[in-house]
Amino acid sequence: MSSSDPIVIVGSGLAGYNTARELRKLDPARPLRIVTADGGDAYAKPLLSNAFKRGLTAKTLPTADAARMAEELGAEIRTHTRVEALDPERHTVTVDGHPQPYSALVLGLGADPLRLDLADDAAAEVYSVNDLAGYARFRAALGGARRVVLLGAGLIGCEFANDLCTQGYTVTVVEAMDQILGRFVPEPAARALQRALGTAGVAWRLGNRCVAVNRGRDGLRVVLADDETLETDVVLSAVGLRPRTGLASAAGLDVARAIVVDRELRTSATDVYALGDCMQVAGLWLPFIMPLMCASRALARTLSGEPTRLGYPVMPVLVKTPAHPIVLSPPPPGSTGGWEIESGDDGVRALFRDPDGLLLGATLTGCHVKDRMTLAKDLPPVLV
Amino acid sequence: MSSSDPIVIVGSGLAGYNTARELRKLDPARPLRIVTADGGDAYAKPLLSNAFKRGLTAKTLPTADAARMAEELGAEIRTHTRVEALDPERHTVTVDGHPQPYSALVLGLGADPLRLDLADDAAAEVYSVNDLAGYARFRAALGGARRVVLLGAGLIGCEFANDLCTQGYTVTVVEAMDQILGRFVPEPAARALQRALGTAGVAWRLGNRCVAVNRGRDGLRVVLADDETLETDVVLSAVGLRPRTGLASAAGLDVARAIVVDRELRTSATDVYALGDCMQVAGLWLPFIMPLMCASRALARTLSGEPTRLGYPVMPVLVKTPAHPIVLSPPPPGSTGGWEIESGDDGVRALFRDPDGLLLGATLTGCHVKDRMTLAKDLPPVLV
Repeated sequence: MSSSDPIVIVGSGLAGYNTARELRKLDPARPLRIVTADGGDAYAKPLLSNAFKRGLTAKTLPTADAARMAEELGAEIRTHTRVEALDPERHTVTVDGHPQPYSALVLGLGADPLRLDLADDAAAEVYSVNDLAGYARFRAALGGARRVVLLGAGLIGCEFANDLCTQGYTVTVVEAMDQILGRFVPEPAARALQRALGTAGVAWRLGNRCVAVNRGRDGLRVVLADDETLETDVVLSAVGLRPRTGLASAAGLDVARAIVVDRELRTSATDVYALGDCMQVAGLWLPFIMPLMCASRALARTLSGEPTRLGYPVMPVLVKTPAHPIVLSPPPPGSTGGWEIESGDDGVRALFRDPDGLLLGATLTGCHVKDRMTLAKDLPPVLV
Repeated sequence: MSSSDPIVIVGSGLAGYNTARELRKLDPARPLRIVTADGGDAYAKPLLSNAFKRGLTAKTLPTADAARMAEELGAEIRTHTRVEALDPERHTVTVDGHPQPYSALVLGLGADPLRLDLADDAAAEVYSVNDLAGYARFRAALGGARRVVLLGAGLIGCEFANDLCTQGYTVTVVEAMDQILGRFVPEPAARALQRALGTAGVAWRLGNRCVAVNRGRDGLRVVLADDETLETDVVLSAVGLRPRTGLASAAGLDVARAIVVDRELRTSATDVYALGDCMQVAGLWLPFIMPLMCASRALARTLSGEPTRLGYPVMPVLVKTPAHPIVLSPPPPGSTGGWEIESGDDGVRALFRDPDGLLLGATLTGCHVKDRMTLAKDLPPVLV
């Protein structure tokens, strides 16, 4: 390694590109190389689950292609290229069989969609969307389709359900838990969204799970654990994400659920950093946009010579379900306390307080989402 | 195909071998070939989850090896051999690249353990036991181990938990649902077993799930969704089964959750039959011993020229948890009605009745299991 070796960023998602952007604000000249397994288009990933009603496609979602990003960032961008290995001792990553040196390495690897363990012949029929290419395949499959079965009623599943039913698809959502939106929100808030999407045409199969997907005479058959069979044209799985940790753990980096970093985004290997969906800090794995933006700003400062500690402010998550919008700010994991819940025709207002009455979390639905800014002022920061 | 072509049975589990045994009682001479992917040892699979306290190992569990079974059954047995393809039109299966004719084909393929979608480096560290070879690997891993994390608190998971804690292992069970034994039993019965195993030393993590397994300095680290980390020596996964349907669906046979057969065990292809864990009949997929024994007897009659309709009697399942035994006879899927529950220090007696008072299901725990025979008389048959 020499100081003239580039900073190498692995990944061209929001984590990688935003780190590059923030770095360029502070250091216009540092050699910068971005290696990405996909095409390197810049786009706002949160739009994937609600692109349809915005009239966006995999072609129109990108705001810049890799060539333009290379120019804008003053970076070399290698697209459709995987980093095969990482050698933290030698400060190299292996690309196309050749070790390449880095002065600092940034892992913005993202996450893979969790896949249900289904029989082989069905696996190819189940789409999942966690990048532009996946979205392109899914939209292609929707052409001529009428019925969609969604596996998973988490944030992304509910957003897709809303987007698809608004476009006239017949949508059925299968979810293993008895409640949608998992453990993120209190039960009345989940019920409010469930009702609103139900009114919009979404059919629910809660407390059930998909055990097989088969080709039938007229499309696909989704078999549930209770042996009900749903006839459909397309199956979209949104049952969760698995941080991409393989490269890091093969290199001996500390990995728990995700790649473990300290408050300066440092992994357990010198000069190797991580952020975004592949990273956890202080026990928090938060695969959302706001944490990633905070991390990219802090990391850019550290990379430009000013070691900077990551903090997370209040970061309410907006669930993009226009049928019944939700803003959620979950209490910290393991908090003691309880929800105070006001529920009415105009939505739900739920506040989580600890035994001393301190506000630790909130969920606002329907009309109450308008209060999110005032409420945010009373919530504690996520990571001080 | 000619009538001198053999009956071919695929699989040497209880489904395959029992069909052969029953057939030989009726037809000592018919040419019979058994093709099996494993070693062809005959053994009682239900013993795997409670072999430890019986002093049994993968070496001592088998009651006969393939050679002895071949002699006993008057059959050719091909071990460590997979059937690569099935051509129902030509009445052939492909083995080692060569099509071989059958006069009748019996699919006793069994099921694969469901696997959680974990990062690659962890997959090899997670054992699952659904055959003798898997049990041998698991027992080898236990040598020198002290701590075991079990993923899944269904029937098999609870049986293993009991067997392992009795042998002095420190056992922690992780289960996604808030209740053990899934939906098989009413909540007080599940709590009774949970308490008894807890007293025996089993630690529970319910309503949680494993999101990663990593190698740590001192063994393995199991990371849960709430970011708790469990240090352990061995991880055993028992989160469910997936019927082996690939061969059948590739051949165009009707497959739903499992291979679909009619009441005479016929698949949708002429002269092709299925039974055991790979099969469903009348919407019922019952991966237990009793259904398989009934099916093998009916099928042997059909194969010997006397078409015989499958029926299932009352088939209570005994959960092999000596810490607190349970007998369960779930009500038919989709039954309306409710549980009448007596709960005391000596166990739980729960009866499921329909709105007219008709007994449809039962769960007996602790001392009440002694009443299982009298109760069985009052329950309706599972499939008439």
